Amino acid sequence: MAHLDITVPMRWGDLDAYGHVNNVAMLSLLEEARIRAFWDAPPEQVALGAEVAPTALPTFSGENAPHTVVASHRVEYARELGFRRDGVLVRVWISRLGGASMSIDYVVLTHDDPDATAPYATARTVIVLVDAVTGRPTRLDGDVRDALAAYVDPPLRFRD
Amino acid sequence: MAHLDITVPMRWGDLDAYGHVNNVAMLSLLEEARIRAFWDAPPEQVALGAEVAPTALPTFSGENAPHTVVASHRVEYARELGFRRDGVLVRVWISRLGGASMSIDYVVLTHDDPDATAPYATARTVIVLVDAVTGRPTRLDGDVRDALAAYVDPPLRFRD
Amino acid sequence: MAHLDITVPMRWGDLDAYGHVNNVAMLSLLEEARIRAFWDAPPEQVALGAEVAPTALPTFSGENAPHTVVASHRVEYARELGFRRDGVLVRVWISRLGGASMSIDYVVLTHDDPDATAPYATARTVIVLVDAVTGRPTRLDGDVRDALAAYVDPPLRFRD
Amino acid sequence: MAHLDITVPMRWGDLDAYGHVNNVAMLSLLEEARIRAFWDAPPEQVALGAEVAPTALPTFSGENAPHTVVASHRVEYARELGFRRDGVLVRVWISRLGGASMSIDYVVLTHDDPDATAPYATARTVIVLVDAVTGRPTRLDGDVRDALAAYVDPPLRFRD
Repeated sequence: MAHLDITVPMRWGDLDAYGHVNNVAMLSLLEEARIRAFWDAPPEQVALGAEVAPTALPTFSGENAPHTVVASHRVEYARELGFRRDGVLVRVWISRLGGASMSIDYVVLTHDDPDATAPYATARTVIVLVDAVTGRPTRLDGDVRDALAAYVDPPLRFRD
Repeated sequence: MAHLDITVPMRWGDLDAYGHVNNVAMLSLLEEARIRAFWDAPPEQVALGAEVAPTALPTFSGENAPHTVVASHRVEYARELGFRRDGVLVRVWISRLGGASMSIDYVVLTHDDPDATAPYATARTVIVLVDAVTGRPTRLDGDVRDALAAYVDPPLRFRD
Repeated sequence: MAHLDITVPMRWGDLDAYGHVNNVAMLSLLEEARIRAFWDAPPEQVALGAEVAPTALPTFSGENAPHTVVASHRVEYARELGFRRDGVLVRVWISRLGGASMSIDYVVLTHDDPDATAPYATARTVIVLVDAVTGRPTRLDGDVRDALAAYVDPPLRFRD
Repeated sequence: MAHLDITVPMRWGDLDAYGHVNNVAMLSLLEEARIRAFWDAPPEQVALGAEVAPTALPTFSGENAPHTVVASHRVEYARELGFRRDGVLVRVWISRLGGASMSIDYVVLTHDDPDATAPYATARTVIVLVDAVTGRPTRLDGDVRDALAAYVDPPLRFRD
């Protein structure tokens, strides 16, 4: 149905000795995009200026909230990315919505290419919700599923 | 005369196994505050949404700009800092303005304590400007000095 | 034919707020395994104690050596990994040897499980050799291919 | 009386866009030196190849061991440090042994300069032992003090 466009601030320390965003640091940028897109911020931090996550999923925060475990990553690097004070623009959506897990797809862009004609990277993360105490997979409940369903879009095709 | 209050986004990866911002990661947050306060962003990135550095120092960017070398850090940690979606609030000023170097002082706060009643950390970084080709210290020119002078304030007192 | 078993030291900073090796930090461990397995160390550093890479590929070092660009990663996480003072044991081999690129597969173990009964993670990195000046893919020459061929083994099967 | 010489492996990711060990990454190298010098490794990990910390302090490990909190850092950078496959050589000693805290001083060298004629950096970390449950400072007991006393040496003089 729709994707989310999340701006993620870069850090100078994300660059490696070639002067480009390091391949490992790219995963940190994706992690931030994921958090900003799908994790609720505590209300008292929103009151102080934290951005509200577009999905505003209440189950992702609070004392008894399930933990989110990263099950896998795929990432393909297409172009070198230098230091950007305007951050990266990460297009993010859900490419598979399972019972206790979901796949999140990403296209890494910059703000001068919002049409994604030349992405820097494409990626997918599979996350699993687990109970914070037992560590067992825990199902996404109905309201959360409904909210997430608005961000389901077809999966990326990977090259390798 | 004045300090700058810079909001620096936190990353989940800044936390360590104790669930607090790691002492090493704190230095990354200070680096970002320093860049946002005193380093010009390229105009094309400002046009795309990059924040304008308050000091707008033209000499800090561009092809022939001097490199900035970190000569030293001091940092004292006062309190544990958890994950904040509203980022940290870094109060930053120049505590010594030398010929080719300057000392930058910082107080690390959060947005619910803008009066700095209980800082998380206090720190100082000494930076030296060096010529990008020769690596030798290079003097701050008059216009830059004048712009920087607006942010000179008395130095912090350190505990240790 | 054969794989390589590379011990990679862990850092306390690899742990995240859950007390486990962070999913992003795991990629740093793989990077170190890759360097220790396939990148020649300068002779003067070997004389001072640097380990000799098993493949001892001369083309990977020196002034005119091709750059190595990471084209893609896949990683699947199977189990949580705590802090290990004995490091991780990364089993690494070449799962595809192309003209200017190769796929490196990894199984992340610890020293108490050298038989890989319960890996912590499995992964694959595709690297491309590019000319340091032109940035274009550059072919692996005959001697290097022959040396690398000794470490070709069948590819991993991924779950996702 | 004596210092300890600890070899700390470098990671390629420690380098920044200038091709040198980043000023923040240097703090990670010091953290590793500190752990290798003064923190006991679990016996089962020693059996698997973990190095025994020279001080072999039993109180630093185990379920009820006090936490170690970093109270402050000072670091002065003297020279640029490139990628070293033989790691860095960190000379480390205790420059002040207090009731519940101690100062650790470091000189960062490479193996071709064991006489410290041209250190890359000098630094000091103040750590405090705190009770894992109450978070309150906890005194170093007699045996530990005696073991640590062997590594007390005069403090560094800092430039800034």
